[in-house]
Amino acid sequence: MSTISRPQNPESNPRVKAVFDDIRATRGSDFINNLWHYLAFDASLLETIWHDVKAVMAKPSHLDPMTKELIYAAVSIANSCDYCIHTHTAAARGKGMTDEQYAEFLSIVSLAGRTNHLLNGMNIPIDPEFNHENES
Amino acid sequence: MSTISRPQNPESNPRVKAVFDDIRATRGSDFINNLWHYLAFDASLLETIWHDVKAVMAKPSHLDPMTKELIYAAVSIANSCDYCIHTHTAAARGKGMTDEQYAEFLSIVSLAGRTNHLLNGMNIPIDPEFNHENES
Amino acid sequence: MSTISRPQNPESNPRVKAVFDDIRATRGSDFINNLWHYLAFDASLLETIWHDVKAVMAKPSHLDPMTKELIYAAVSIANSCDYCIHTHTAAARGKGMTDEQYAEFLSIVSLAGRTNHLLNGMNIPIDPEFNHENES
Amino acid sequence: MSTISRPQNPESNPRVKAVFDDIRATRGSDFINNLWHYLAFDASLLETIWHDVKAVMAKPSHLDPMTKELIYAAVSIANSCDYCIHTHTAAARGKGMTDEQYAEFLSIVSLAGRTNHLLNGMNIPIDPEFNHENES
Amino acid sequence: MSTISRPQNPESNPRVKAVFDDIRATRGSDFINNLWHYLAFDASLLETIWHDVKAVMAKPSHLDPMTKELIYAAVSIANSCDYCIHTHTAAARGKGMTDEQYAEFLSIVSLAGRTNHLLNGMNIPIDPEFNHENES
Amino acid sequence: MSTISRPQNPESNPRVKAVFDDIRATRGSDFINNLWHYLAFDASLLETIWHDVKAVMAKPSHLDPMTKELIYAAVSIANSCDYCIHTHTAAARGKGMTDEQYAEFLSIVSLAGRTNHLLNGMNIPIDPEFNHENES
Repeated sequence: MSTISRPQNPESNPRVKAVFDDIRATRGSDFINNLWHYLAFDASLLETIWHDVKAVMAKPSHLDPMTKELIYAAVSIANSCDYCIHTHTAAARGKGMTDEQYAEFLSIVSLAGRTNHLLNGMNIPIDPEFNHENES
Repeated sequence: MSTISRPQNPESNPRVKAVFDDIRATRGSDFINNLWHYLAFDASLLETIWHDVKAVMAKPSHLDPMTKELIYAAVSIANSCDYCIHTHTAAARGKGMTDEQYAEFLSIVSLAGRTNHLLNGMNIPIDPEFNHENES
Repeated sequence: MSTISRPQNPESNPRVKAVFDDIRATRGSDFINNLWHYLAFDASLLETIWHDVKAVMAKPSHLDPMTKELIYAAVSIANSCDYCIHTHTAAARGKGMTDEQYAEFLSIVSLAGRTNHLLNGMNIPIDPEFNHENES
Repeated sequence: MSTISRPQNPESNPRVKAVFDDIRATRGSDFINNLWHYLAFDASLLETIWHDVKAVMAKPSHLDPMTKELIYAAVSIANSCDYCIHTHTAAARGKGMTDEQYAEFLSIVSLAGRTNHLLNGMNIPIDPEFNHENES
Repeated sequence: MSTISRPQNPESNPRVKAVFDDIRATRGSDFINNLWHYLAFDASLLETIWHDVKAVMAKPSHLDPMTKELIYAAVSIANSCDYCIHTHTAAARGKGMTDEQYAEFLSIVSLAGRTNHLLNGMNIPIDPEFNHENES
Repeated sequence: MSTISRPQNPESNPRVKAVFDDIRATRGSDFINNLWHYLAFDASLLETIWHDVKAVMAKPSHLDPMTKELIYAAVSIANSCDYCIHTHTAAARGKGMTDEQYAEFLSIVSLAGRTNHLLNGMNIPIDPEFNHENES
């Protein structure tokens, strides 16, 4: 049950069509997932979000593609975003993630959940050794 | 300001000493950060948490060490755990993260924060193409 | 799948009936949404929550009604509360929100998600210029 | 660094004085903690929040006082509310919590953090056995 | 819709069978809920998580069993983990929670949500009276 | 304690200087707050984030400026981002927010925190009346 309606013929709007064409070209695929279909209810918002995603995920990078998807999925899990969890887990698989790597990813994410709660509960001082400003 | 007191001579408790010795041996360093010093108020809790961290972070792995720290840090940011953010950002640097990689990491984490909020707001259906159960 | 059962004839309890009557009178509508039906499993909890909601949302106000719903929906998105997102997005529409305003609302909420993650990751000092205590 | 200024003579406002008097009487103590001092910038908000807290925490109860504080502290940890963590951990100690119980509390809260992240990541179906609606 | 597939004959793997046998023995029940069935996709992850849960929830304890489940459920609510909310609410009922106690639990959890947001918004200083380190 | 060092002469980098000049021109002020100073450690990240903020907060709008800041601050509170809470609360004051409006804002944000937790705990079905897709 969505808070907006999925537009029926989104590409009749030339601004939407331009974004959809760019998605297809950037990804080398005809598949346009629901996010973009629903965002088409407002061409300006669609352009803003696509611009952002393309700038970060499709540009030349200092991190390998699977690592980028794992970072994205890790944040999405902590924020309980079901849609994002599914898209970025699938993308990580598409970029080579094995079942063993996925299991290890889940073990790290859940361990972080554990120590995050422990340390937020204890509220102890951060060791000065971790202050990056000291080092420059 | 902490919710517990930092024990004065934690290693006078042999169970604590055994854990501290294992931390030093596992990490190849004499530095014991505050987390373990404060956890020493309860030997059983200290053992449980160290067991968990060692099992996940120090075992043979299907992911490279820097990627593991980035996943850990990503969750910690989403959970606002200042202590964890500092320790795992420092650990990622210790495992080779450059400033360019850190900047890219921050761009991915913050983009995930953006689309997580967008999609939680819209609540759209997950495309059946992302259902991993279909594929097995 | 709920953690409690929806009571069958809630208004047979006079305390529940009194709250339902007040909801209808306050809102000028016969529609009682699921929240209140389920809360009727415990008359005391129902009274507490309705008292709270009425005190904040139905009293004379220094903010316009649509703005109040947008603030409510923004928090609900950050907390991943699907039920609350739907009720308060619908309420904002009922108080005049256009599709253009909704798109802009989503762009602000998601941008906040982005910079919240960025700044929680960087953990930089707050500029003294933002300290309201300085100004009094 | 606060977003509001701490009022200088809050009890010169009779509405504030009435709330402060009720806090002292309810708690049997002259200590008024910072929350109430700062909230005194707006008598209406002060009354609303005190009304809420008193209704839940000071009324005759089906749960023992220490358990109530532990539930409160658990939520506060998950929400990263430092002020609330400190007040409700201290309150739990004031109601009899031992160090052993606090250590066990932290082990449960952090384990929940772990499995919450694991299950939000996996997104598996809830077993029908857990549906309370089936049972009525 | 899950991110992993539920293994068909998990107990054909002896490591999985050993964990399932231990779950049945520890709980005194033949029912194995979905969490463990899905985790069986990776025996190592299954062992890690079961080890953690057993160590915390099934050991001799300084807190009563229902209180432990309420703490677990409270964190799960704050983290929006639907699966965990259902399992631990059901477990609390199984350990004696009445409807009156559940209503009171919900009133505390939701009040904590309220003051957590209020105090995170105001960002006021923690009273030195709450500093446990002062007391030792 | 930050995870990055504040660059000493950021405007010696022409890409940084171009962004800083645009911030000054857009805001009509010489004040550059810490966020931008620290982000200057990576010109590309600085450009990305400033582009995003400018696109949303400084463009012609369907919402009034104070409402936009309140929505931003509401999300920041729910995400425990201290820096963001301070900047956007100060910005709301700069755009006319009175103390009465701020108190009402806090009452709404904290009430949302309350009902978000309540409804995430109960997990009740969303009324079909709130389905916007039905209406198109």
